[in-house]
Amino acid sequence: MAMPEAKDDYHAVRRQAGLAALKDRFHNRFSQAPAVREQHAHTTTWHANQPPDAVVFAQDEDDIVAIVNICAEHGLPIVPFGAGTSLEGQVNAPFGGVSIDMSEMNKVIRVSPEDLDCTVQPGITRKQLNTYLRDTGLFFPIDPGADASLGGMASTRASGTNAVRYGTMKDNVLSLRAVMADGSVMTTARRARKTSAGYDLTRLLIGSEGTLGIITELTLKLHGIPESVAGGVCPFTTIENACNAVIMTIQSGIPIARIELLDVAQVKACNAYSKLDLEEVPMLFVEFNGTEAGVAEQAALFGEIAESFEGGPFKWESEPEKRNALWQARHDAYWAALQLRPGAKGIATDVCVPVSRLAECITETIADVEACGFLAPIVGHVGDGNFHVLPLVDMDSAAEVEAVEGFLSRLAERALRMDGTCTGEHGVGQGKGKYLPKELGDPAVAAMIAIKKALDPENILNPGKIFPSGYAAGEPVIA
Amino acid sequence: MAMPEAKDDYHAVRRQAGLAALKDRFHNRFSQAPAVREQHAHTTTWHANQPPDAVVFAQDEDDIVAIVNICAEHGLPIVPFGAGTSLEGQVNAPFGGVSIDMSEMNKVIRVSPEDLDCTVQPGITRKQLNTYLRDTGLFFPIDPGADASLGGMASTRASGTNAVRYGTMKDNVLSLRAVMADGSVMTTARRARKTSAGYDLTRLLIGSEGTLGIITELTLKLHGIPESVAGGVCPFTTIENACNAVIMTIQSGIPIARIELLDVAQVKACNAYSKLDLEEVPMLFVEFNGTEAGVAEQAALFGEIAESFEGGPFKWESEPEKRNALWQARHDAYWAALQLRPGAKGIATDVCVPVSRLAECITETIADVEACGFLAPIVGHVGDGNFHVLPLVDMDSAAEVEAVEGFLSRLAERALRMDGTCTGEHGVGQGKGKYLPKELGDPAVAAMIAIKKALDPENILNPGKIFPSGYAAGEPVIA
Repeated sequence: MAMPEAKDDYHAVRRQAGLAALKDRFHNRFSQAPAVREQHAHTTTWHANQPPDAVVFAQDEDDIVAIVNICAEHGLPIVPFGAGTSLEGQVNAPFGGVSIDMSEMNKVIRVSPEDLDCTVQPGITRKQLNTYLRDTGLFFPIDPGADASLGGMASTRASGTNAVRYGTMKDNVLSLRAVMADGSVMTTARRARKTSAGYDLTRLLIGSEGTLGIITELTLKLHGIPESVAGGVCPFTTIENACNAVIMTIQSGIPIARIELLDVAQVKACNAYSKLDLEEVPMLFVEFNGTEAGVAEQAALFGEIAESFEGGPFKWESEPEKRNALWQARHDAYWAALQLRPGAKGIATDVCVPVSRLAECITETIADVEACGFLAPIVGHVGDGNFHVLPLVDMDSAAEVEAVEGFLSRLAERALRMDGTCTGEHGVGQGKGKYLPKELGDPAVAAMIAIKKALDPENILNPGKIFPSGYAAGEPVIA
Repeated sequence: MAMPEAKDDYHAVRRQAGLAALKDRFHNRFSQAPAVREQHAHTTTWHANQPPDAVVFAQDEDDIVAIVNICAEHGLPIVPFGAGTSLEGQVNAPFGGVSIDMSEMNKVIRVSPEDLDCTVQPGITRKQLNTYLRDTGLFFPIDPGADASLGGMASTRASGTNAVRYGTMKDNVLSLRAVMADGSVMTTARRARKTSAGYDLTRLLIGSEGTLGIITELTLKLHGIPESVAGGVCPFTTIENACNAVIMTIQSGIPIARIELLDVAQVKACNAYSKLDLEEVPMLFVEFNGTEAGVAEQAALFGEIAESFEGGPFKWESEPEKRNALWQARHDAYWAALQLRPGAKGIATDVCVPVSRLAECITETIADVEACGFLAPIVGHVGDGNFHVLPLVDMDSAAEVEAVEGFLSRLAERALRMDGTCTGEHGVGQGKGKYLPKELGDPAVAAMIAIKKALDPENILNPGKIFPSGYAAGEPVIA
């Protein structure tokens, strides 16, 4: 969006003054080195890298307040940066501004084993947290593949393989602290397990992708490490049979902890990347948590269901090392898939549909992939009706890029037609805002915009994310 | 708040025109009969009855849209009315206006057993819904004692005895439709089990007590009726021992379905009201859901824990009729308690604290009750750290009223000191707004007000609820 030059000059001068003020305050924790700036913009997927003007390495909440106040005064956009593992360009800086690196804010503030909860800073990663918790017999279950930061996971309403059992981030955060656009520090809730004290500000911030406030503390629900964990892999003759086994498993009320689908392309990719020797057919990875008797009961029921859909034999993996290797391979599926076509970009997708429509949605999607001639492995959290198809695209080929754009639109439309969503867990970011009006309707989008304007009237918090149209700090949310 | 007379006249004329327009549109579904108006204001507890100017009996969403448009045009407050079972004056009309009776909007729109979900109108009650579902093998678990409407339960973020296992309304609603203050109809989400598609408008409406939008449809998660349900009662020597048994049960990760505390006064009340013969000591009512083996395992573990806190013998009730009678007695606890002092009002409270502080909070509260000389039975969803102490007060005695006001303040302060909330499940309504700034801090209250103003700038939706200060439709949210 072109602006008159005089205004550009005014903005540029104002913003330079803001950057100078930040440098004054943060000294060697302020960087404008091109490599640092680029590293803090988005690199995981196909979104182009849009670096911020500067990166500040925050060490505590006071730092965040100072940054917000300086940025608000000078019209500088603010982009919170956790581990940089988001997939929809959430850490890009399309309007420049300041990236706040949270990696030094990675402390566990308190753990209360008796209440099954803890409070952490936003920069801690899920693996750091679970390592810290190991001696308590507790763990934090949400695992979005990458070793993401907890602040980032809350911001995108992340989930992952365990969500079918433990829910998503929205179900596992008791309370947040966040610095708001006016520099105030908001606490969303107390530490009680439930509350009816006014609007649910906790859930409002979860999934807001840094556009409403900058999370500085999270109080999380923890879970006891199950007495018994067991699982394994189960081959199927067709994707459809595998999906139908999933549907039946969910409908039977088996409290399965994980149930993940890999299609043939993905199984091949994992075999190559993670040195496995899985049979190269559609495959479910499953895990059961519970007491020893409970786990055995669940596994037996699942085995029967699989058999009734021409699946099996269900190969039980009782050695923890081998089971962990399987799940590591599952978590590395994205990287494994990329190796199928070196040099290509993987276009991450994450539609989610009611589980009864899952087989239909995946089957139609595979037909679409084949018609397009893409290499596009499929992997998914199928217990939630959520799956990832990853077209591997040569971004230098205009024809391929155009074809994949058509494919992405059709995929989103297909999910919506089945009463699903364009994004089950990655968030809207820079790429999916265009689907929101169709998915939720104009009144919902209008409500989101009204809330955004009410809480961040100058639009300094992560502008250019969630909302479809382009706009800059100081500009209306929708230009 | 006194307003200049000319303004009063203007408002009065405008509102009369609005009422006339509603009468024109709804004919015999519009009533200004004093009995009907009073019946739709708050009568369950101690809040004074503040009737609306009129009641409209809505039959569909179009009716709601018409009512909102007419009320918006004429500055008439709107108060949604489900079953009238809320406990904090949520259906009172302190600024007059129109109560929308939802009882005729009580249809089940669809049930999808394969997705474990259904869509209902807001006026259906939880018992109506579960009766409807009986043949599907599914049920909706949230049970706030009273046979509340689902719309009302969502609006207050209700929970009840099953929340320790199944969560609260926030965990069991997939999506809502709601008429917003501008007459638009908003859908908050699709039917996918999880989504990251923008702000969580579903959770924003849940618990908003009708102040942001009027719910016209709810899509709910359903659960399979457990293969086996078992439970019973377990006596304890002291309240503290009972609480400590609860804490240990939760910490042990036993997936208990219900665990409810009754103190001696409440046990006596239930014996008298529900014709039971329970031993008159502190008592836990417990229930286990699962497979037959799972339930037996859980019950054995609980029995051991109870014994280690001088509890027991745990009396297992295997006959469904007797078990149901026990739970009916539990649900009737409020009415039973009222009979302890005929003519007195029961002041319902519902603080909730981290479970580790539960014994301490209840013990201090009992000491306070004794110092005050109140009759105040205690009953609670102790697995969540949530309990109800119900002072029975002669509202004609100024001294008693003053004493109970002091007690309520101390109770709230005590819960906050223990990092809890002033309301675990009843909502803020008319009585608890004054605690919000202390509980959440000014930035959170400011954010709630900003959201309210953004979505209902004329303040026509249920004014006088949640936010502390008085204000009328057409006036700012905080005067």
